[in-house]
Amino acid sequence: MLPEALPRAAGVLGGGVIGGGWAARFILNGVDVRLYDPAPNVAESVQKMLANARRAYRRLTDVPLPAEGALTIVDSVADAVHGVDLVQESVPECLELKRKLLATASRAAGPGVLICSSTAGFRPSLLQAEMDHAECLLVAHPFQPVYMLPLVELCGGQRTAPEMLERAAAAFRALGMRPLALRKEVDSYISNRLDEVVSRESVRLLHDDLATPQEIDDAVRHSLGLRLATMGAWYPTDGGTRTRQEIEQCAFERPSSTRTGKFGTSPNFLDKAAEKAASLAKAPPLEVPLEQKRDDLLVAVLQGLRSQDCGPGRTLARWEQGLRDRSPRAQPAEGSGPLRMPTLAIPSGWIDGNGHVAESRYLQLCSDATGALARYIGIDGEYRSRNGAYYTVETHLFHLGELRAGDRIQTSTQVLGADDKRLHLFHVITREGTERPAATGEQMLIHVDAATRRSGPVKGNVRKRLLELARVHALLPRPERASARIQLPPRAPVAE
Amino acid sequence: MLPEALPRAAGVLGGGVIGGGWAARFILNGVDVRLYDPAPNVAESVQKMLANARRAYRRLTDVPLPAEGALTIVDSVADAVHGVDLVQESVPECLELKRKLLATASRAAGPGVLICSSTAGFRPSLLQAEMDHAECLLVAHPFQPVYMLPLVELCGGQRTAPEMLERAAAAFRALGMRPLALRKEVDSYISNRLDEVVSRESVRLLHDDLATPQEIDDAVRHSLGLRLATMGAWYPTDGGTRTRQEIEQCAFERPSSTRTGKFGTSPNFLDKAAEKAASLAKAPPLEVPLEQKRDDLLVAVLQGLRSQDCGPGRTLARWEQGLRDRSPRAQPAEGSGPLRMPTLAIPSGWIDGNGHVAESRYLQLCSDATGALARYIGIDGEYRSRNGAYYTVETHLFHLGELRAGDRIQTSTQVLGADDKRLHLFHVITREGTERPAATGEQMLIHVDAATRRSGPVKGNVRKRLLELARVHALLPRPERASARIQLPPRAPVAE
Repeated sequence: MLPEALPRAAGVLGGGVIGGGWAARFILNGVDVRLYDPAPNVAESVQKMLANARRAYRRLTDVPLPAEGALTIVDSVADAVHGVDLVQESVPECLELKRKLLATASRAAGPGVLICSSTAGFRPSLLQAEMDHAECLLVAHPFQPVYMLPLVELCGGQRTAPEMLERAAAAFRALGMRPLALRKEVDSYISNRLDEVVSRESVRLLHDDLATPQEIDDAVRHSLGLRLATMGAWYPTDGGTRTRQEIEQCAFERPSSTRTGKFGTSPNFLDKAAEKAASLAKAPPLEVPLEQKRDDLLVAVLQGLRSQDCGPGRTLARWEQGLRDRSPRAQPAEGSGPLRMPTLAIPSGWIDGNGHVAESRYLQLCSDATGALARYIGIDGEYRSRNGAYYTVETHLFHLGELRAGDRIQTSTQVLGADDKRLHLFHVITREGTERPAATGEQMLIHVDAATRRSGPVKGNVRKRLLELARVHALLPRPERASARIQLPPRAPVAE
Repeated sequence: MLPEALPRAAGVLGGGVIGGGWAARFILNGVDVRLYDPAPNVAESVQKMLANARRAYRRLTDVPLPAEGALTIVDSVADAVHGVDLVQESVPECLELKRKLLATASRAAGPGVLICSSTAGFRPSLLQAEMDHAECLLVAHPFQPVYMLPLVELCGGQRTAPEMLERAAAAFRALGMRPLALRKEVDSYISNRLDEVVSRESVRLLHDDLATPQEIDDAVRHSLGLRLATMGAWYPTDGGTRTRQEIEQCAFERPSSTRTGKFGTSPNFLDKAAEKAASLAKAPPLEVPLEQKRDDLLVAVLQGLRSQDCGPGRTLARWEQGLRDRSPRAQPAEGSGPLRMPTLAIPSGWIDGNGHVAESRYLQLCSDATGALARYIGIDGEYRSRNGAYYTVETHLFHLGELRAGDRIQTSTQVLGADDKRLHLFHVITREGTERPAATGEQMLIHVDAATRRSGPVKGNVRKRLLELARVHALLPRPERASARIQLPPRAPVAE
């Protein structure tokens, strides 16, 4: 069932970088698109952008996407707006062109159809001047890449109907965006004005020979970008927010940078600004102190980027590699006990929506312990490419206690048996300082030959080390939960 | 073993927001800290910051952290620099104070000890004027919060030894930071200059009554911040980078914003700038086209933020909830077969370093199917808060075939049995168009009472619907792998 707010079909005028991005966002949200752009090859370039967007959305979410909307390339503005609920105009920034196109669209669409312009520079009152249904026109200004970045700034003109702004906000929200309604008509939008000053200063740094584009990008990605992405521009410096004095300093001229053009800051303005800034720290109420929320957001971004060999993700991955090189390896417990993994603190990212460690994380702990055991018996990159590796064929987990974020846990692993191809393991996950396991995981693995990709015998020194470990572990007591079956006790089923 | 570059002990001068942040970064990386700050309660405030940093690092990484360095609060500059490899000065921004302190530190530390200043405003040549070992002084300017943000801008003065800059870069790298060496002495650093223009423009937006701090923060977090965090300030707009024309535009004045103070842009500068910008898109070589890399970085940040109920993370989570509401629900197969989950395409994010679907994802599929069954029998938010919910106590997985990214799969679930408190399920995961399961998952769940948090009977309509489902499913054939044990066949173990 479609949410009511989502348009059924959208008319897209202009198929460039912005229009194509809009088309991709509509289509992947299940909205049919009728696209008009007289440029040659527009179908090809929009399909290419749609393919990129499809790839990105598959990575972005594992929730099933709706059936894609249909893309129809049409020959006229009138055809593009035929039967649609929403028109999105993204043609080049030329006032006469936009005015003419929007007037044609308005006439053809008739009353009640939302008509949005992506313009970054023209006020909606100027755009709606010649339209039959001016009350339907508003600016909906996105940020590129449109199918990825959630911001859309909404701005009505003198003749825009308030209910049209509301309908637009609901529609963009249903498309996964964050609509932000501006209260005044301005030439440039909030996001663009901030973008402009950053662009300008970054060109000036190059101009003054202070840094190369590469150095500027590195600096921004490792500092300001992380702050702006998590806390915005009124960023709390040390758990508070900007103070009155800090706000006043922002308005000063500084000859060293492009902070010229002082604007007046009356004591009255500064008082009010400081008050508004302070209220940021209060609403909405946070479950943790502000510094901790800030850190949680930074952690979330850095962890997200870790898988990307780029910017702060690469810096984090390198630091972790250094920590790993310093940290103790899996090793036998005192005497000749099970193999012990280093102690681990449960990261907060492991907690699901209900406040528990997601159950699949227990299996991940078992996988990690199996990986550590494999390294312990000598399976390395060379062995894997020459001989093969172990693959899990069965796992039996028992959940016996609850784990929380920050809990320090340890996994220990006992070899229950091994033959030519099979390896039978038993993992015990324990919270530090407790005896009773939080979970156990029993696994059967099979050795798969690198050449044949079928099961095959373990070889050479790895075989020798495994057998030695199996021999030592055979002397340990067999865990009570090993080789258990899952079944209901043989009692009468519940009475109806 | 400590990496060679890492200091063994650091002297920290000043224990405010910056000095305390440095202390936390050093200590959590295993470096002993000797801290001098005459302020009362400095021990308390540094301990508080250290506690926050400890919490953040536990969330940031699941690699074990090294044993913490020791924190010693000392009474003098001389005592703080005694026996350390690196001194980090972060006292208030007053030239005379810094000069005096650094001279004292240099005399007491002797030759060969790195002395770094966190100053944001003074050139190193000014700072080193009165030092005995001026060759050891450099600026190492961090970004707040120091223990989280990786950037550190390094700048030597006229008398700084080049090898000291190299040693400092290696030390900060070992501390998880991204050192960026500046080639010129400047009054303000790259990151600060960009930060300043953003701060100034955000105050001006408020001053001109165009947006509240809350609106500005929302806009930034949903647009510019995400771009700067992923691609830096020379951001490629549509898969390329800034063109010559775009660079020229950045230098124009615009009366609508604070982009005043035009600086000259000669054709020669513009040519070189465009060339440098274009080279960004080439080096380092990317494994995917630039637009796709950009999207991957944005996906990584957005996914990271999803768990945080804030900014674009909240926007993404809401969109996904909308998708979930629209997606087909689990329903009985034709006739009265097992419950079927909607078809799902394996997201590429599920693939581990070896190109396989990580084994814990199979358990996630089972969890999701169990969740769908719970909704099917009527367990909703109200039931959960009033009565309770099912928790998994055991899982038995069989891995029978391999899945790849993009494979379309379906999970179906059969109730094998249920009593007052227990629920016994069997999930089968199949690739679309094939008969043989890719995996099966058997689970035992227990009904936990919301009030007592202990096992308790299932109630009301949920009980009724469950019993009806169990009755229908009892007529289905019992899966051959149900209630299996994990064990090696009773054969001779492998010969030694």
